[in-house]
Amino acid sequence: MKNAFQTVALIGKITNPLIREHLLNLAQFLEGRGLEVLVEALTAEHLGLDGYPRVALSEMAGRADLAVVLGGDGTMLMVARELVDHDIPLIGVNKGRLGFLTDLTTDNMQASIGKMLEGEFTRERRTLLGASLVRDGVVTHKGRAVNDVVISKGGTARLIELELTIDGEFVHRQRSDGLIIATPTGTTAYALSAGGPLLHPTLDAIALVPVCPHTLSNRPFAINGNSLVEITLVHAADAFVHFDGQLQTALNCGDKLFVQRLDHPLTLLHPHGHSHYAMLREKLNWG
Amino acid sequence: MKNAFQTVALIGKITNPLIREHLLNLAQFLEGRGLEVLVEALTAEHLGLDGYPRVALSEMAGRADLAVVLGGDGTMLMVARELVDHDIPLIGVNKGRLGFLTDLTTDNMQASIGKMLEGEFTRERRTLLGASLVRDGVVTHKGRAVNDVVISKGGTARLIELELTIDGEFVHRQRSDGLIIATPTGTTAYALSAGGPLLHPTLDAIALVPVCPHTLSNRPFAINGNSLVEITLVHAADAFVHFDGQLQTALNCGDKLFVQRLDHPLTLLHPHGHSHYAMLREKLNWG
Amino acid sequence: MKNAFQTVALIGKITNPLIREHLLNLAQFLEGRGLEVLVEALTAEHLGLDGYPRVALSEMAGRADLAVVLGGDGTMLMVARELVDHDIPLIGVNKGRLGFLTDLTTDNMQASIGKMLEGEFTRERRTLLGASLVRDGVVTHKGRAVNDVVISKGGTARLIELELTIDGEFVHRQRSDGLIIATPTGTTAYALSAGGPLLHPTLDAIALVPVCPHTLSNRPFAINGNSLVEITLVHAADAFVHFDGQLQTALNCGDKLFVQRLDHPLTLLHPHGHSHYAMLREKLNWG
Amino acid sequence: MKNAFQTVALIGKITNPLIREHLLNLAQFLEGRGLEVLVEALTAEHLGLDGYPRVALSEMAGRADLAVVLGGDGTMLMVARELVDHDIPLIGVNKGRLGFLTDLTTDNMQASIGKMLEGEFTRERRTLLGASLVRDGVVTHKGRAVNDVVISKGGTARLIELELTIDGEFVHRQRSDGLIIATPTGTTAYALSAGGPLLHPTLDAIALVPVCPHTLSNRPFAINGNSLVEITLVHAADAFVHFDGQLQTALNCGDKLFVQRLDHPLTLLHPHGHSHYAMLREKLNWG
Repeated sequence: MKNAFQTVALIGKITNPLIREHLLNLAQFLEGRGLEVLVEALTAEHLGLDGYPRVALSEMAGRADLAVVLGGDGTMLMVARELVDHDIPLIGVNKGRLGFLTDLTTDNMQASIGKMLEGEFTRERRTLLGASLVRDGVVTHKGRAVNDVVISKGGTARLIELELTIDGEFVHRQRSDGLIIATPTGTTAYALSAGGPLLHPTLDAIALVPVCPHTLSNRPFAINGNSLVEITLVHAADAFVHFDGQLQTALNCGDKLFVQRLDHPLTLLHPHGHSHYAMLREKLNWG
Repeated sequence: MKNAFQTVALIGKITNPLIREHLLNLAQFLEGRGLEVLVEALTAEHLGLDGYPRVALSEMAGRADLAVVLGGDGTMLMVARELVDHDIPLIGVNKGRLGFLTDLTTDNMQASIGKMLEGEFTRERRTLLGASLVRDGVVTHKGRAVNDVVISKGGTARLIELELTIDGEFVHRQRSDGLIIATPTGTTAYALSAGGPLLHPTLDAIALVPVCPHTLSNRPFAINGNSLVEITLVHAADAFVHFDGQLQTALNCGDKLFVQRLDHPLTLLHPHGHSHYAMLREKLNWG
Repeated sequence: MKNAFQTVALIGKITNPLIREHLLNLAQFLEGRGLEVLVEALTAEHLGLDGYPRVALSEMAGRADLAVVLGGDGTMLMVARELVDHDIPLIGVNKGRLGFLTDLTTDNMQASIGKMLEGEFTRERRTLLGASLVRDGVVTHKGRAVNDVVISKGGTARLIELELTIDGEFVHRQRSDGLIIATPTGTTAYALSAGGPLLHPTLDAIALVPVCPHTLSNRPFAINGNSLVEITLVHAADAFVHFDGQLQTALNCGDKLFVQRLDHPLTLLHPHGHSHYAMLREKLNWG
Repeated sequence: MKNAFQTVALIGKITNPLIREHLLNLAQFLEGRGLEVLVEALTAEHLGLDGYPRVALSEMAGRADLAVVLGGDGTMLMVARELVDHDIPLIGVNKGRLGFLTDLTTDNMQASIGKMLEGEFTRERRTLLGASLVRDGVVTHKGRAVNDVVISKGGTARLIELELTIDGEFVHRQRSDGLIIATPTGTTAYALSAGGPLLHPTLDAIALVPVCPHTLSNRPFAINGNSLVEITLVHAADAFVHFDGQLQTALNCGDKLFVQRLDHPLTLLHPHGHSHYAMLREKLNWG
């Protein structure tokens, strides 16, 4: 039996010590299948995993040809932002209930991953966004997101005022609590709470979802995935830009944020039989 | 000066006699530019336009290489459903205020069309949908739409129950007043009233917008434009399918409706400087 | 032990034969407590219940001082529309899962009703709406509703045009699929699907919820419960008025519909510990 | 001709020097009618208005029996929060376009106010909210609002988690960007942008409008105006409470906010013919 992969990187949610045992079991299982196992450096350190080479996420390029992430969607987002450049496919395993991005559970992971190693998997591409913050003509910050880049008011102000330009064409000025620029992946996350539509992951699109817009006809808008989105912060008492809701940078009036699809998509691996619609049914309580 | 087109078909809103004079002026203008002018047969008959060859919409293939429509969005929709097969580009002229599809007005049409004949135009592709109604295994009806195919309850019942399948994969059962399957073009029409998102015309997508769904998490959904949408009417006291809100057919329980993007897109011609966003700003009172 | 009531009317969902046994058990239980039992005439006939006086709903006045309804929310709505005039309080019992109006189940009904007979209950008032349809200056139809009076398009048309007047003051013209005039009770029903707010039953209010309005700022609106709502059907290919989604009448252009709170509220009895919020949590999957 | 009032307090938007002339004109007009004129102390100071007694807002009780506010809705909100205790009715005058609360303009104010002084006015009551912030069992802050009390996330976090209790009864836990507790007056402001319903000012109600709730069925909710709303901040990286979007206080986890209708309503005076619906039509672009 030949494996579809040679070297597997294991990455865990570092703040959850209960992950340790599942990681060890998985590592032994993979070794038993003749695979080389690496453990992500912070994971190994925080969870106390010895006996396997420790490799930082930023050093994974050329080292692993598959990464398995044990954790929730938050861990997946963090890993995806790093590994998307190295073209290493991801398998997501969740403890407990499934996540939007993690379609295996610790209960079924050995059986599922076993089959996937034999080539029984489907490959799914997910778009990421890259953003550049330009202040006074200089790029002062770069970020990327699997779900969304969000410009939002801070704690001291109600409305911010943005000017939106797409591919160099003026769209409108908007007064709102903020604006969510989401990938199709992100449309099941914050954008959905703000009234945005679901976009299928195969759609080459970017969703622009205003948060509490002053003008009621400022509706959610999906544009072509190859668009260049330019947002100028016209007026705000305080405002921030967030990436996947986890990182943030304060904005000044006059700041410009350029957002664009990353050149390389992320690759997720799913067991045969995976269904995006089944995931939506379960997570959104359809029916 | 060489014209970019040789033969222009003129089509008017047949219920509006005020269109007659604008059509005549335009016909003379075009003849004066050395173009051949045809008039759509019903237009000529209803508005009493003599002196130009009368050609039915269904006979336009190979006769005209450009069609100019004078009327509102409704006339444009009707013409577009017919001419999309013949690959004849359309220019839309509105009396009074602009429509979503008609970006010239009778006031500026001669100046604008004059430049467009010299090649100063941009080409825009718009997707249409085709639908087949299958009853007891037999296709009993076919229809097409520029904006939307809508399944909806009739006057005697509140909820209908649908089963939605995409590319052969079960999505969910939905109880609602109806379901809108919209092109990007249609997302500024009925789908918007039902809470759907705006989709940019360049997006290769189909919007699925439930109307008053019983389950609150049945949110608007945009899927890939190459998807095959299959809807089974599971339960309804009475239900109908509409095409662009203008044509309709009664549905029986068990009926299946298959909806798919048409192979050929429609071509709209716009004067240089046309802006989709400017149209949205004006029509939606942004800002 | 003294009972809080003397004569109890039993009413069941006549299309559900499984209700028969529960009705019989309950009748015997009530007789065992020394209460007189009546059975609603249609219930007795359809479900084959002999041995108890049969009384039509319209004849209940002065005969029963409590009515117990076994069925779903639909049966409750029908009974409530009839009994509200007679000031007979209602207890709702559901088979299977709870309804919005039926807070006992057949499993717990004997224990719960036993205590309620001893006076351990809370009284809740619910507003009903009454409507008069005026055609050519003459009232041609009257109806009432526990949940909602709905004007809506039929199967042949998309938009209808309404003119809304409240307490003699012009509000606006609205183009939409329809307009829902809902009691607070009705705000958990169709109005919720159409984007309306939840209104607490103690709120003396009427909700006006447009269905797919053409103008995006035509938002749901709650007005004072003592308001007189007047709707004129300005334009429609076909349109209907519905009462609780169960009865309907076709409308003509020019028809006026006057809607107002009924003078007498409905009284629902709940066991101690009943919580409106607990019901919302369960039915709406909060948390 | 007898005036309906004796002493009028004039209050202006202190940051707008163009208001000065209008205030002076109005003061002379009122004096000419035999009325005593006071000027609010900060207004007089910032705009340089001499020749009239200066009285601080907090000292108005018993001094003025009418207050005219020249400014926008923001100035009205500030004055209303102060004067509601003193039972001094307000007339609002806007420079330029009308506001939701200011229904006179500087152009028509002399004619309108002239008639109102003669008794030709209607009185409208508006509810205000009072809030107490309890930390570790101690009231640490009190605030009031004409429009809304808002709990919201700050700039560093996405979701906050609240527990909502009404009249001592647990409602639910909610994860969201925040929660708006709005008066009917406030339902045309921030609550509307967040998807809330319009509530008529005569409705004795409080609107609870979640901002981007994680659970899609956490819909806007209107409760009885006499309810005691209690919100516990369960979890937040940072959170704030705002009053009319103008004042704010940072919250800690565990903080409780109690919100209740103030005992005394605000009184607004309108010229005869004032129409709440006409205001909505204009401000919301209905029709």
